[in-house]
Amino acid sequence: MPDPLSTTLAALADPTRRAILARLSEGEATVNELAKPFEISLPAVSRHLKVLERAGLISRSREAQWRPCKLQAQNLRAVDDWLSFYRRFWDESFERMAAYINELSQGDGDERTKKRR
Amino acid sequence: MPDPLSTTLAALADPTRRAILARLSEGEATVNELAKPFEISLPAVSRHLKVLERAGLISRSREAQWRPCKLQAQNLRAVDDWLSFYRRFWDESFERMAAYINELSQGDGDERTKKRR
Repeated sequence: MPDPLSTTLAALADPTRRAILARLSEGEATVNELAKPFEISLPAVSRHLKVLERAGLISRSREAQWRPCKLQAQNLRAVDDWLSFYRRFWDESFERMAAYINELSQGDGDERTKKRR
Repeated sequence: MPDPLSTTLAALADPTRRAILARLSEGEATVNELAKPFEISLPAVSRHLKVLERAGLISRSREAQWRPCKLQAQNLRAVDDWLSFYRRFWDESFERMAAYINELSQGDGDERTKKRR
């Protein structure tokens, strides 16, 4: 059994499943409604929904016959928590790059001043 | 060929690979150094490193014979960008829960006041 974070990340590692989550961010939807924009069969959509449900990223109503799907975004929070540790690394590299560009443009400015002299 | 974001997410969907990234966040390391804390073979670690390298999450020096691995955290930014759209959903549900708890505790206070009377 993979750990919950691995299950969530594996469920997200598919463009169709991410598109399904994006559609559900606008509100509940049935399997038929979810299948419409995709060129895949209903059983294929159902399989994707099962993966998302197992990862706790969507829930399906047991009551209504059409069993609408609903986004459960709370589980994405674990991904965000994991990611937050690494945020400083790309912030740092962004700052280094900004400092480098700044340095270059200042150097460029000096060149121009020299030419003008 | 999966899209870059799917490749990154699939690479992250493994606890050993996430542990390798955590180790590399402390600095460069060789395959031998990376393999030490895990109860898996060197070839297994090498396979994990290949997955991480393909996802652009690590780079390996071509120069040194021991080819140290280095964290490339910038690619995690795409995951963060994707996630940022969904942040409002768990923020909202957290706020709703906080409001509900607040409501409950106020109700509880009223009950106690009634009993005291």
